[in-house]
Amino acid sequence: MTKTNPGRFFEDYAIGQVIDHAVPRTVSGGERALYHALYPMRHALYSSDAFAQSCGLPGSPLDDLAAFHVVFGKTVPDVSLNAVANLGYAEGRWMTPVYAGDTLRSTSEVIGLKQNSNGKTGVVYVRTRGLNQRDEVVMEYCRWVMVRKNNLDAPAPEAVVPELKKVLTVADLTLPERLDFTGYDFTLAGEPHRWGDYEVGEQIDHVDGVTIEEAEHMMATRLWQNTAKVHFDATFRPDGQRLIYGGHVISMARALSFNGLANAQMIVGLNAGAHANPCFSGDTIKAWSEVLDKADTGLPGVGAIRLRLVATKGSAPFALKSADGKYLPEVLLDLDYWALMPK
Amino acid sequence: MTKTNPGRFFEDYAIGQVIDHAVPRTVSGGERALYHALYPMRHALYSSDAFAQSCGLPGSPLDDLAAFHVVFGKTVPDVSLNAVANLGYAEGRWMTPVYAGDTLRSTSEVIGLKQNSNGKTGVVYVRTRGLNQRDEVVMEYCRWVMVRKNNLDAPAPEAVVPELKKVLTVADLTLPERLDFTGYDFTLAGEPHRWGDYEVGEQIDHVDGVTIEEAEHMMATRLWQNTAKVHFDATFRPDGQRLIYGGHVISMARALSFNGLANAQMIVGLNAGAHANPCFSGDTIKAWSEVLDKADTGLPGVGAIRLRLVATKGSAPFALKSADGKYLPEVLLDLDYWALMPK
Amino acid sequence: MTKTNPGRFFEDYAIGQVIDHAVPRTVSGGERALYHALYPMRHALYSSDAFAQSCGLPGSPLDDLAAFHVVFGKTVPDVSLNAVANLGYAEGRWMTPVYAGDTLRSTSEVIGLKQNSNGKTGVVYVRTRGLNQRDEVVMEYCRWVMVRKNNLDAPAPEAVVPELKKVLTVADLTLPERLDFTGYDFTLAGEPHRWGDYEVGEQIDHVDGVTIEEAEHMMATRLWQNTAKVHFDATFRPDGQRLIYGGHVISMARALSFNGLANAQMIVGLNAGAHANPCFSGDTIKAWSEVLDKADTGLPGVGAIRLRLVATKGSAPFALKSADGKYLPEVLLDLDYWALMPK
Repeated sequence: MTKTNPGRFFEDYAIGQVIDHAVPRTVSGGERALYHALYPMRHALYSSDAFAQSCGLPGSPLDDLAAFHVVFGKTVPDVSLNAVANLGYAEGRWMTPVYAGDTLRSTSEVIGLKQNSNGKTGVVYVRTRGLNQRDEVVMEYCRWVMVRKNNLDAPAPEAVVPELKKVLTVADLTLPERLDFTGYDFTLAGEPHRWGDYEVGEQIDHVDGVTIEEAEHMMATRLWQNTAKVHFDATFRPDGQRLIYGGHVISMARALSFNGLANAQMIVGLNAGAHANPCFSGDTIKAWSEVLDKADTGLPGVGAIRLRLVATKGSAPFALKSADGKYLPEVLLDLDYWALMPK
Repeated sequence: MTKTNPGRFFEDYAIGQVIDHAVPRTVSGGERALYHALYPMRHALYSSDAFAQSCGLPGSPLDDLAAFHVVFGKTVPDVSLNAVANLGYAEGRWMTPVYAGDTLRSTSEVIGLKQNSNGKTGVVYVRTRGLNQRDEVVMEYCRWVMVRKNNLDAPAPEAVVPELKKVLTVADLTLPERLDFTGYDFTLAGEPHRWGDYEVGEQIDHVDGVTIEEAEHMMATRLWQNTAKVHFDATFRPDGQRLIYGGHVISMARALSFNGLANAQMIVGLNAGAHANPCFSGDTIKAWSEVLDKADTGLPGVGAIRLRLVATKGSAPFALKSADGKYLPEVLLDLDYWALMPK
Repeated sequence: MTKTNPGRFFEDYAIGQVIDHAVPRTVSGGERALYHALYPMRHALYSSDAFAQSCGLPGSPLDDLAAFHVVFGKTVPDVSLNAVANLGYAEGRWMTPVYAGDTLRSTSEVIGLKQNSNGKTGVVYVRTRGLNQRDEVVMEYCRWVMVRKNNLDAPAPEAVVPELKKVLTVADLTLPERLDFTGYDFTLAGEPHRWGDYEVGEQIDHVDGVTIEEAEHMMATRLWQNTAKVHFDATFRPDGQRLIYGGHVISMARALSFNGLANAQMIVGLNAGAHANPCFSGDTIKAWSEVLDKADTGLPGVGAIRLRLVATKGSAPFALKSADGKYLPEVLLDLDYWALMPK
């Protein structure tokens, strides 16, 4: 009888189910300006049409993580409204850059289901695709969340746990066809460090910090049309705090990583990601990175670099887990991604 | 001698006076992105060019309430700088959708004047029109405010109280000519509920809540070039609080009403509106609606629905007034409007 | 070995050195919408394409101070990351209006160096130019800052102190070629006061005040890609306060000056500027102006007016310095600029 969306519960999902998410979105220069006002973004390819054109692109695309947030936000009412935990990401691939004027929509397929032994929750695995107005896949990723059961008597489905790659190789990625870094302008980009200057195992402290405000994370989260109430309603949690959308931390850390990784221009793959601890207003976010791998690409002047990006609430860099293997309480994010760099 | 604008006082108005308001405004995708960052807007017609085109429009218009705010904001320096109360709205009609690139200006005619018996204030009635660069009326509405006298010796004008319709009928409205909901995509719109699924008298609790921040309401109010100092200057009120522009509450409630009224796409008429109590930073806004009426339109697949939209600072839904007929202290807004829905 | 930017120290500068600053920026309607949401901007030429076209321009440009912030922000990593004081501005000229779609970059030349007698710091003078995608100079200005030495043993450079004009004359300015105010619409602009109505020595209290929020100054500062950490990291200063970018105060004061100077449309010259005291969140900014000079221009219907713009944190207007010649503690900004007005 109620017309409002209660969200899906664990028993509402079935393997192979396809969910077309609501509210397509046309993006403009407004989304980019806001993204750069909310995060200290400075990657030149995403700031200047002229710079992007000198790299073979038709213009400056929307930041890759902004495209991710648009695609992700649409899934929230269908996938995570009743989620109790966001467990992981895998096999994320950015396949087509997004430009002002593009209209994005999202669709997800249920690829895994496993009821927990307590009988009250289960894990749902989805593969989500974002498509533009030409039905090109803009990006896709797998995500798994723990979702509550509403009807505790609903039978447990047959457990299906998908085999997801722990790490994508460059061969798994879809790189932008015309990208060409042979005429790359390191001065305009802001740092002289080439792909060849980074070594596997190298760690970089990005130094700068940003203290988080309620108005900013809410504006960001609304812009992506992510409606999970815990981000907006101060009366929702007993402690009166609004839980900050994990994607806000991802974008803040990525922006901070410019200082030391200014030439890690395009994000093309997401291997894994963990929101290690919750983030709240007043936290000061800092970030550090570690080079996990490097690989060639077939594109002129373009190398691929695999990076761990860690966001903390101000702890010393390079500390990640305690002796028992758990994330330190100051760690907010542990992300594993592939980016493209000039050689 | 002073060059600053003291605002008009009650004795400065005359029946039939036409005031052309200052500062025309060209809107772009930037205004839309900001509007969707400040409010959790998700109506598909206002989010996606492709969706709007599938409904017969040339593209996705600026949200109807954003157009209202642009038109309204221009009137503040001339109409309400010395207002002590915003008393009511009537006969509001949205007549031409606003698109990126349009330039809006506003003009008001004084249609009523009535000095109060205390001799210190009076009520001013204006009919305001917003026009685009082609001199098409974008929207119009009547509003009446209580304004202070500056010269208490100024004679009272002859009292003129305009006869304003309590409720517009669909015949009074100007509907968008080419609108066609016969191919409406309910999946992309976010809810399956059609015009025929709503019954007069039905009440909907929109469930979600948003806690208000100073930075957000000031950004919104500035974007509409509304300069009433009480919204911006924390030293203006003895309690150190900034009074939030009533339109901020209207837009927040409308956005929250998506959950249950996702298909009430276009706002075409405003019958009445009351800002029942002031709103301040830290308030958590919730909303509920009641179906007041339904009507056919001549447009293919399009029904009209008349809705009461109530915003509260977190009280239980569906409570509006106390036994003495006064609004409950938790009620912020009581709005009566017509929207268009797919049949 | 570190890949992050430590910033330049005093000994890293040399006379004649040219620094091409990083991260070019393409601006859109998004930047303007945000600028008008962050500051109460209402100058009609910068709000309406139709109004700007009636003044001979192809459309409404980006606000002059927004262009300044874009140009200035790029210089921060190279000029002021290790600055201990922002000492002054001179010879600022706006030469080409900026429109949506333009891509801006900045370049600076070191024009002066003088080590301080303490041997620990020195003053660096730069002339900065902002250029668009056609290599036209959008604006230029001189600025001098006190910068720390890193290597205290580095020899002092030969002292060079550039001769900078205390005040530009109209002949020094580059006025927009096609500007024509003969058909200027004073009603749409918001005030009737012409160039001829202002007298040298006249003072104007702009009346309105705005209380500053952390979220707003950080969004503004990030939008200009100004990364000085003191603006963002609440843990950076011992008192836990974020120092507000001086440009935020400049833009706020300029916007407030609309009330009394609505027709001071285009800023074309910056003679001098001092950030008299630091500004913090919670301060309520007010502004007053003084007419310092007036001059003819060769443009039809266009006069030039030289204005002092003072921002305070709420003190009485027209008080500037104490008997000992120091700025009063409530004074935040003292700016001296040329604007163009209709005759």
